[in-house]
Amino acid sequence: MSTTPAPRASDAIIVPERITPKPADAESLDVWGFQDTRFAIDGDGNAEVLGNRYELSGQKLTRLMPWIRDTLGIDISASDVFRSQYPIAIPPPVANAGFCTAIRDFLREDQVTLDGELRLRHGHGQTQEEMFAIKYGSVARVPDLIVYPETQEQVEKLVVCAEAHGVSLVPYGGGTNVTDALRCDEEEPRAIVSVEMRRMNRILWIDRVNLTACIEAGAVGRDIQAQLAAYGFTMGHEPDSIEFSTLGGWIATNASGMKKNKYGNIEDLVLDMTVVTANGVLSRTAASPRESVGLDWRRMMFGSEGTLGIVTSAVVKLFPLPEVQEYGSLLFPTFEDGCGFMQELARTPSVPASVRLVDNLQFQFGQALKPASTGWKVYKSRLEKFFVLNVKGFDAGKMVACTLVFEGTREEVAQQQKAVTALGAKYKGMAAGSENGRRGYQLTYGIAYIRDFLMNYYIIAESFETSAAWSDVLPLIRNVKKKLEEEYARRKLPGAPFITARVTQLYRTGAAIYFYFGFYFKGVANPSHVYLELENIAREEILRSGGSLSHHHGVGKLRRHFLPSIMSDTALAWKRSVKAATDPKNIFGVGNQGL
Amino acid sequence: MSTTPAPRASDAIIVPERITPKPADAESLDVWGFQDTRFAIDGDGNAEVLGNRYELSGQKLTRLMPWIRDTLGIDISASDVFRSQYPIAIPPPVANAGFCTAIRDFLREDQVTLDGELRLRHGHGQTQEEMFAIKYGSVARVPDLIVYPETQEQVEKLVVCAEAHGVSLVPYGGGTNVTDALRCDEEEPRAIVSVEMRRMNRILWIDRVNLTACIEAGAVGRDIQAQLAAYGFTMGHEPDSIEFSTLGGWIATNASGMKKNKYGNIEDLVLDMTVVTANGVLSRTAASPRESVGLDWRRMMFGSEGTLGIVTSAVVKLFPLPEVQEYGSLLFPTFEDGCGFMQELARTPSVPASVRLVDNLQFQFGQALKPASTGWKVYKSRLEKFFVLNVKGFDAGKMVACTLVFEGTREEVAQQQKAVTALGAKYKGMAAGSENGRRGYQLTYGIAYIRDFLMNYYIIAESFETSAAWSDVLPLIRNVKKKLEEEYARRKLPGAPFITARVTQLYRTGAAIYFYFGFYFKGVANPSHVYLELENIAREEILRSGGSLSHHHGVGKLRRHFLPSIMSDTALAWKRSVKAATDPKNIFGVGNQGL
Repeated sequence: MSTTPAPRASDAIIVPERITPKPADAESLDVWGFQDTRFAIDGDGNAEVLGNRYELSGQKLTRLMPWIRDTLGIDISASDVFRSQYPIAIPPPVANAGFCTAIRDFLREDQVTLDGELRLRHGHGQTQEEMFAIKYGSVARVPDLIVYPETQEQVEKLVVCAEAHGVSLVPYGGGTNVTDALRCDEEEPRAIVSVEMRRMNRILWIDRVNLTACIEAGAVGRDIQAQLAAYGFTMGHEPDSIEFSTLGGWIATNASGMKKNKYGNIEDLVLDMTVVTANGVLSRTAASPRESVGLDWRRMMFGSEGTLGIVTSAVVKLFPLPEVQEYGSLLFPTFEDGCGFMQELARTPSVPASVRLVDNLQFQFGQALKPASTGWKVYKSRLEKFFVLNVKGFDAGKMVACTLVFEGTREEVAQQQKAVTALGAKYKGMAAGSENGRRGYQLTYGIAYIRDFLMNYYIIAESFETSAAWSDVLPLIRNVKKKLEEEYARRKLPGAPFITARVTQLYRTGAAIYFYFGFYFKGVANPSHVYLELENIAREEILRSGGSLSHHHGVGKLRRHFLPSIMSDTALAWKRSVKAATDPKNIFGVGNQGL
Repeated sequence: MSTTPAPRASDAIIVPERITPKPADAESLDVWGFQDTRFAIDGDGNAEVLGNRYELSGQKLTRLMPWIRDTLGIDISASDVFRSQYPIAIPPPVANAGFCTAIRDFLREDQVTLDGELRLRHGHGQTQEEMFAIKYGSVARVPDLIVYPETQEQVEKLVVCAEAHGVSLVPYGGGTNVTDALRCDEEEPRAIVSVEMRRMNRILWIDRVNLTACIEAGAVGRDIQAQLAAYGFTMGHEPDSIEFSTLGGWIATNASGMKKNKYGNIEDLVLDMTVVTANGVLSRTAASPRESVGLDWRRMMFGSEGTLGIVTSAVVKLFPLPEVQEYGSLLFPTFEDGCGFMQELARTPSVPASVRLVDNLQFQFGQALKPASTGWKVYKSRLEKFFVLNVKGFDAGKMVACTLVFEGTREEVAQQQKAVTALGAKYKGMAAGSENGRRGYQLTYGIAYIRDFLMNYYIIAESFETSAAWSDVLPLIRNVKKKLEEEYARRKLPGAPFITARVTQLYRTGAAIYFYFGFYFKGVANPSHVYLELENIAREEILRSGGSLSHHHGVGKLRRHFLPSIMSDTALAWKRSVKAATDPKNIFGVGNQGL
C-alpha cells in the first residue's frame, strides 16, 4: 500500500518542488518573526517599524508610546531598556551515541544539528513565559539534537531508531505554539530529538477536478498559500500564524483560521492524512468526501499535540481563489450592541468569511497604531471623527469596531454586504468603510512583533483565548476583565493593566473570544511568573463563566492542569490509555499534554 | 461532576416528558416498519398499500406489478407466494444467573425480558440477509436477554454488572442498522445482553438562546423532530430511517441526513456527548461551540458502532424551523447531464437543503409507483409527457430526474431556486415542478416497505452505498452496474437484475451514491447468499473505482473484511489497540466491527 493517497482525477497537477526558504525570509531566534522586521524607538522617542515587509513597516507611530503611557498609567522611558540576555546558558545535550550512529545511515550531515541556539529555539514556542525565559531567565532542558527529515521514509526510520535506542521525539513545525507544548520536560531522562518537519514541504499533487491537494505536513502556511494561488486555488485556512505555522502543526493543535466562516476550521478542511506512529504508518488508499468506516483514527489526530505520532502529509480541500475579496467595517456605540449584531449575524445565511469585533480599548489601540498623517488624510480623518462623535453621538470611550472580510462570487459578496449593513443598522451600527476593515486585518501580522518590542521596556503582554455559548460571551468578558483588575490591584502591581477582548469567530451556538492582557513590570519580582499566575486566574474565571479551555490554541503543558475541571476522571483515564496503547514506549514523549 | 452538561442560558426550556410509544405506532417484528402499513396484491392483481400513514397508503398502484414483470423479465404470479416461516426457531437463552440476580437490584420486572420474538428482533438489523434469515433461514445466536434502562445510572450499573459477571452488552436503538452490526457473534460464549435504549428518550433541555438541546440517546428521530417542532426548532437531521432510528444510533453509525447540505451530518450537529464505557462515564462540564482540548474522545464515538461504550445523551445544535420549505424538480436528458449539474451545484453558495439525482431506471420506478389516475389528472400528465418527449425531445429511456428541497428564509430560498434553475438550464435541465419534487421525497418512507413485500414474490432487493470523488462518480456507477450485470449473466440467474443508482449527497469534493440491486430468485439455491456474494463483488468494484467502504451505513460485520483493503495494517492494529485499551474485557463485544 502506498503511504499517501493518489489523486483521483488523472489530470492532477504535480507540483514537485520542495520550497527552500529564501535568505530574505530568515527568522529571528530570540523574538517573533522575520529578522527584517522589528519595532524600535527613534531619536524623537517615537515608535517605528523597521523593514518593509508589512503595511506598518517604515511607519512612524507617533501616537503609540503616548497612548501606552496613558493606558498603563506609567511614564515609560525610551532610554530605560530591559536588556535581553539572549542567548542564556544552553544546557549541554544529553548524548545517545547509538541513536546518532544509527541515523547516519539515512540522514546526511546537513540533516542533523547540535547547534546550541537552534536547540534552544526548538525547545520553545511563543508563550510569554517561554520568550521571557530565553531572554531574561533560564531553561533547564532543550532538545538534545535536531533532525531534518526530507521524506516520510526518513521519519519512519527515525521512529524505529528512537524506539531501538530509547529516544524521545518531538515534532516541530513553525515553532509558533502558544501552549508550552514544545517546552521540554525537565524530568525526561532520555535524549530529546526535535524532528523539524519544514523540509517536508512539497505539495505532492493538486487535483483540480475534485478540488483536493496532497501536501506534506511541514509546508508553511504562506508557502501553501502562494503555491496554490499560482494555480488559482486556496485552502482558505488563515490562522494569524500563517507566515510560520505548518499544515502538520495546524492538525496537531486543531487550528482555526480567520476565514473559517467560509472555508471551515482545520478539521473541516482535512480529508485524509498519513501519520508515522510508534508502530508504523497510519494511511489510507483514498481520501473520500465523507464516510463511515468505524473508529476513525484520523479524527484523533486533531489536537493530538505531537503525542500520538508525526503527521507527514494530508489531503486537504481546495477552493478556487475568490472572484471578489472585499473588506468592510462597522462602528457600534457599545460592545453590547456589537455582540448583539454578531450573534444574530452568526445565524444568518450571509456570514462573511471573517468577522471580528474589538472592544473599545482595542479600538483605541488600533487608532494609536495609526501612523502620523498629514494633509488631506488628517482633514478627512478629523471630519470622520466629528461625524461619529457629534453627529451620530457615539461615545469615544464606549464605541467599538467590527471588521469584515467578504470572499466569494460578485453576487454572493454583494448580497452579504447588503445583509450585513442592514443587520448592523438594527444594532445602531454605522458602516465605517472598507479601508478601516482592510487596515484591521493588515495589522494582524505586523502587530505580532509588538510583544517582544514592549518587553524591552518592561511591559509583558500575551493573548489567551476561549470559546463560549452566546449567552455567556458578554458576562464572561466582563467577569474576566473584572477579575484581572481586582487581582492586579490586590497585588499592588504598577500602574494599570491592559485588558482587552475581541470576538473573533462566529458559530451558531457561540463565539471565540480573544483576550490581550499586559502590564508594566519594572520593580516586580518574577514578572513572567506573576503573569502566568494571573493568566491562570483568568482561565479559572473563564471556565467558571462557561468558557472552554481553548478554542484553537490547545492544551499543551500550559493548561493541562485544567483538564480535570472540564472532563470526568474516566475521560482523562481514557485519553491516557489510548496514548499508552498506541505509544507504549512513549516515543512521542512530549509531556502528556492534552492527555 | 454532573454527567450531562447544563444548559448555558438560564431560561432554557425543560422538557421532562419521556415519550411512551403510542399503540398505533406498534412496529412489526418480522418486516420493516409500522404494523399498520404494508404492500399487498388485491383481487385484480394490483399492488396496493394498506393503512393510512403515508401518501402511498390506500393507493392502488396499477402500474407497479406490470413494470416489475417487465423490468425483471419474469412473469411474476400474484398467487405464487414464498411463504414466510417467521418466527423461525429461536435459540434458547444462554443463562447468566449472577447477572440476572444482580440487575434485579436496580431494574424493575418490566425492564427485563426473555421473550423469544423480541430477542430474535434484537439480534438483527435490516440487511436482506438478516431479514431473509428470520423468515426463511435460521439464526444460530440471538441476544439472551433484553434490558430497558431508563436512566444513565442504570446503564452504568449494567456495565458494572456485565463486567462482574462476564456478560457482553450490545446497545440497541431503532434496530434499523444495515451492516449486520446487531447480528450476534456465533462464537460468543458469554451471555449477550441487548441494551434497548428507547426508554431513554427525553429531551432534557432546550436552550433557545444558544440553539442547543440535550437529548437522551434513545430518543427516536420522529419524536425528536415532533418535540422540537413544538417549540419552533429542528435538528435538521433526517436520515431515511428517521421514523425508527435513534440519536445514539446516529452517532454510533456516523449517520447522514438528507438535508445535510443545510444542517450538516451527525458529526457536525453533535457538540457534546455522555458515554458509559467499560471504565466509567465519559462526560464534560460544558458543550462548547468549538474547541481544542487535546485528543478528543468524543470524535472517536462517531462510527464506533457500539464497540466502545453506550452513548446515553448528547448536546446537539438546533435550528429554528425554516420560514419556507419548498420542493423542486428538474429533468435532464441524460444521467451525465444531471451529474454535471450536481457537481457544479455542489461548489456554489446556493446548495439547497437536499438534492438527489436518480438514474433513468429509478425515474421509471418512480413513475411505476404512481397510483391509477383519472380525469383531468390523466390529461395533465399526458400533456406533460408529450411536452417532455416531443417538444423537448428527451429520450424516455435516458432521461433522469433531480428532486430538491429548499429550506430557509424566503429570500434565501428564492435565491437558491433562481440559481438552481439557471444552472439546470446550463445542463439542458428542465424545471419539472414542485409537485414532482415533493412526491419524490414523500416516497422515501413508504417505499421502505416494498423490500419485504417483494420477498413474498421471490424478489430479493437491497441498497448499498458509497461516496466518491466527483471524477469517479460516473465511471464508478457504470463499472458497478456492468460488473453486476456480467456476474448475474455468468451465474445464469433468472431474468434480468434490477440495478439502479442515485446521487444523494453533495460535497465540494465528491458525492454519496446509493445503489439498489434486486433480482428474482425462484429456483435459485441460497438466494440470500447469492445476493451477498454479488454485493461483495459490487463492493470490490466500488473500491477499485475509487469509492469509499461506506458513506453513512458503516462497516459492521458486513464489511469488516474489506477494512484491510482501505487502510494500512498499522491503522487496523491501532484501532484494535484503542479498543483493547478502553474495553479490556470486551464488554461491548459486538464483534469488533469497524475495528
